[in-house]
Amino acid sequence: MSIRMGRSTVMLENGVSVISSSAVGGKKEGEGPYAGCFDYIDKDGYFGQPSFELAESAMQGLALQNALEKAGKEPGDISLLIGGDLLDQCIGTSFGTKDFSLPFLGIYGACSTMAEGLLLAALLTDGGAAETAAAITSSHFCTAERQYRFPLAYGNQRTPTSQWTATASGALLLEKGNEPPFVRAVTIGRIEDKGITDANNMGAAMAPAAYSTLSQFFGDSGCSPENFDYIVTGDLGNVGSRLLCELLEKDGVNIRERHLDCGRMIYDEKSQDVHAGGSGCGCSAAMLCGYLLPEIKAGRIKNLLFAATGALLSPTSSQQGLSVPGISHLVWLSHDRNGGL
Amino acid sequence: MSIRMGRSTVMLENGVSVISSSAVGGKKEGEGPYAGCFDYIDKDGYFGQPSFELAESAMQGLALQNALEKAGKEPGDISLLIGGDLLDQCIGTSFGTKDFSLPFLGIYGACSTMAEGLLLAALLTDGGAAETAAAITSSHFCTAERQYRFPLAYGNQRTPTSQWTATASGALLLEKGNEPPFVRAVTIGRIEDKGITDANNMGAAMAPAAYSTLSQFFGDSGCSPENFDYIVTGDLGNVGSRLLCELLEKDGVNIRERHLDCGRMIYDEKSQDVHAGGSGCGCSAAMLCGYLLPEIKAGRIKNLLFAATGALLSPTSSQQGLSVPGISHLVWLSHDRNGGL
Repeated sequence: MSIRMGRSTVMLENGVSVISSSAVGGKKEGEGPYAGCFDYIDKDGYFGQPSFELAESAMQGLALQNALEKAGKEPGDISLLIGGDLLDQCIGTSFGTKDFSLPFLGIYGACSTMAEGLLLAALLTDGGAAETAAAITSSHFCTAERQYRFPLAYGNQRTPTSQWTATASGALLLEKGNEPPFVRAVTIGRIEDKGITDANNMGAAMAPAAYSTLSQFFGDSGCSPENFDYIVTGDLGNVGSRLLCELLEKDGVNIRERHLDCGRMIYDEKSQDVHAGGSGCGCSAAMLCGYLLPEIKAGRIKNLLFAATGALLSPTSSQQGLSVPGISHLVWLSHDRNGGL
Repeated sequence: MSIRMGRSTVMLENGVSVISSSAVGGKKEGEGPYAGCFDYIDKDGYFGQPSFELAESAMQGLALQNALEKAGKEPGDISLLIGGDLLDQCIGTSFGTKDFSLPFLGIYGACSTMAEGLLLAALLTDGGAAETAAAITSSHFCTAERQYRFPLAYGNQRTPTSQWTATASGALLLEKGNEPPFVRAVTIGRIEDKGITDANNMGAAMAPAAYSTLSQFFGDSGCSPENFDYIVTGDLGNVGSRLLCELLEKDGVNIRERHLDCGRMIYDEKSQDVHAGGSGCGCSAAMLCGYLLPEIKAGRIKNLLFAATGALLSPTSSQQGLSVPGISHLVWLSHDRNGGL
């Protein structure tokens, strides 16, 4: 049974476990510091497909298939798939997963999608609506560039605050169980809009959302940063990470020593200059599924907060001069089913 | 507690009630046969806003505010809002609801969004993750036309199978409770793709999904069409409705006498020629929130299946020659908390 704590935090008391996870990535991700955490790296980002969009879908298919195989499951064993992506109308997910023929709920949380999918899958498993649930997402540099910014062939110059959309997908399976990693609690984020209108500065737009959700979690749960080995944000990048730490510090909350950001991890800052860091739904999904969850399973990480962030803009809203609202959803992942704090 | 039945049906045993609902619409909807069911009809579809997109957002704000007022609730009483729409990156919902500052989960189910939001809100309320949950969606003829088809000023000729995107929004609130309407069960749909590539024939693309989900529900639950006063699909329109009845008939299942389709209801076929019917997330949401739920509450409808359908295409997928996958989610709504069959 799920236990509500405060406005928007829910504790899971039944022991919901991540039973398998998989990460798939493109060429650039395969040259980064976490290359070894991907189950498959494509040689060119096309994944054998005729379009970038179908390549993104193919990534999702690969990630889901890998996650199923690692858990020894068939598609017919899955009672629910939750997924979404950055493409208009989430076609990356619908075309990437349709042939698995799973009960499917589409979500949209921009780059917070993996946190949203994971928390929903965990709550529905905990509440009895799903037995084995899956969450999936992806992003692709080439689909995102032409949808949100410019045709690749135009060769535009990127601003210093811009981030590089990761070509990656992550998938995971959840069940009630007794093996780590466990989903211990979730906090559902609120949309935060501080009036940022620079669509090339996502970090600044999303940092207030991460601040809001982390503050809410600490307040609702009574936990403090010291209870966690790492507090991992999705893709705030260099700019947003700095802002988040400053915002929390004003409240006397210091996360600097334990803060990681997937957007700062996935590429090497020196040898792979991507300006302010990586981004995209696939960035935090791949770091979670390929690196963080296996570390928790192995016990090298005991308690971790995963707070992915999303920028809820569209090309249309930006062209109309609107701001960039942000959202952040949080999942507490733990090696221990109870206690451990 | 939620009780799973079969592959993808979940029975709700705790008594989850829809405590209020509201529908808001545009000028054309205000000239249709259900005009009296809307809480607010705008004079011109702009809702006092400078763009069609902001008008769509304004509709959502109005619908949510009305639903709150009818239930005597403040935004602070709501533990969870679930919503989405047809616009790229669901900006209708994020800009329309951000100022309510609610814990928010974005979903994408195309025109099945209200069924998806309602079922998720019901399951999360039933499982204890939410106390008072809200679901919302919208569509706007003018935002949809320019995003999916042509600029309005181009004045293109519509094909006979095309449907008219409703300018409408629906919002509802759910709680554990003892007052009708009750959410008795839900069936989570699977993506069905029969290879339809005509983006102007959504009815044909979505009918197989409605067929799949209704068949799954009847199989999982042991219910038959005769147990329900009405079986209501979202926006199959004339073409899709005929196909759905034919598909079910091949299995010996006859729903003709009790089948309603929101896309066929919302406009007058003779005086408001919209070709194959209405469509859009707002179409079935408004018919549900403005007409069907109040009828169940009053006891004039005892048992109803609401199976909204969505076409999971994007302009990009159509331009690349891909098919139009469909999905349908089902909610059993009832005047009685238990029994009644």
